[in-house]
Amino acid sequence: MSDFPEKASRPAPQGAMKHREPGSEREMLFARRVPTGDSQPRDICGHCGFIHYDNPKIVVGSVVTHTTESDGERFLMCRRAIEPRKGFWTLPAGFMEHGETTEDGARREAREEANADIRIRDMLAIYNIPRIGQVQIMYRAELASPNFSAGPESLEVALFKWEDIPWGELAFPSVHWALTQFRAAAGQTVIAPFTNPEGETGGRFPPRAP
Amino acid sequence: MSDFPEKASRPAPQGAMKHREPGSEREMLFARRVPTGDSQPRDICGHCGFIHYDNPKIVVGSVVTHTTESDGERFLMCRRAIEPRKGFWTLPAGFMEHGETTEDGARREAREEANADIRIRDMLAIYNIPRIGQVQIMYRAELASPNFSAGPESLEVALFKWEDIPWGELAFPSVHWALTQFRAAAGQTVIAPFTNPEGETGGRFPPRAP
Repeated sequence: MSDFPEKASRPAPQGAMKHREPGSEREMLFARRVPTGDSQPRDICGHCGFIHYDNPKIVVGSVVTHTTESDGERFLMCRRAIEPRKGFWTLPAGFMEHGETTEDGARREAREEANADIRIRDMLAIYNIPRIGQVQIMYRAELASPNFSAGPESLEVALFKWEDIPWGELAFPSVHWALTQFRAAAGQTVIAPFTNPEGETGGRFPPRAP
Repeated sequence: MSDFPEKASRPAPQGAMKHREPGSEREMLFARRVPTGDSQPRDICGHCGFIHYDNPKIVVGSVVTHTTESDGERFLMCRRAIEPRKGFWTLPAGFMEHGETTEDGARREAREEANADIRIRDMLAIYNIPRIGQVQIMYRAELASPNFSAGPESLEVALFKWEDIPWGELAFPSVHWALTQFRAAAGQTVIAPFTNPEGETGGRFPPRAP
């Protein structure tokens, strides 16, 4: 998956309502009430009794750099082949799956989206986007080899020098946050993870390129 | 919620099977196949077509200390009133809910389980427990006031000096990890978050008390 961050589990609907789950095959009747033994109201399917424990989802990804003598430090970015934000540039990132760790997931996303093997260095940031029920965990990483190419969810993959990053064509605000916070921490070997920029919740882009 | 960490969303069942969701009101027939437009197999309800995107869940919590001249540094712990591990000691922590940030969630859990207001300082650790589909995000925090008492999910709440922590009665391995890593980072103002101790996945306790 690489739905980062605009499509995701939206917060549970309020009150009894009909709705269609993303990709579901027919409409369902969910009613919102407190299940036996719980303290919070949950969505319960009127057809089958399924209790939908809908908690925030984790996105894992990384700022991947590749540094050479000739070109200096460059940043690995992917141009999205899928909605949302098809055609815009993002970092390799996507929904964490069962059976993997957060670091496994970040490595898998780099393989899937950029056919790239990465070495994870440390955690760069944790972003909260409550509006779409996401927690994004971003790592600092580097290419383990200089090979990469577009995976099925990318139109193209490229290494950008800092000054060439397509700031006007970024897919999501948190791509901007991660890149600028990575840059702010350059040279620091131990960092406390960054969080959302003050007052930002993911609904808008920073006013201008850094 | 305070199901930390032994009860949670287990990984999705393999193959077509009947199963009862925790707390569900009747048995459901889920079949495992790839939904239209997806690349991964998911569990799809044979009754209603519900697609269960079952991703890892986030537990948020904190190591909360309270320091006074007379008693020095003490650690806030809760004795569980609910299964799993009823009667054992844990840190205030539980499942993150929609509409809150990870820090909001850690503060809410301290209020719910210990009637305590806490001030969060920074991130202590991120633990991966893939077997039960959990990512645990633990903060360093302190009591904002010296008031606390047992919430509905706690039998009792207490402040322990380090040497009095009930090491033999801890609820979960990650409680042990968080306390010992907190101690290891004493005096460090900037820390990179700790992760699982080498080789540990949450299935066993460390061999002895620190």
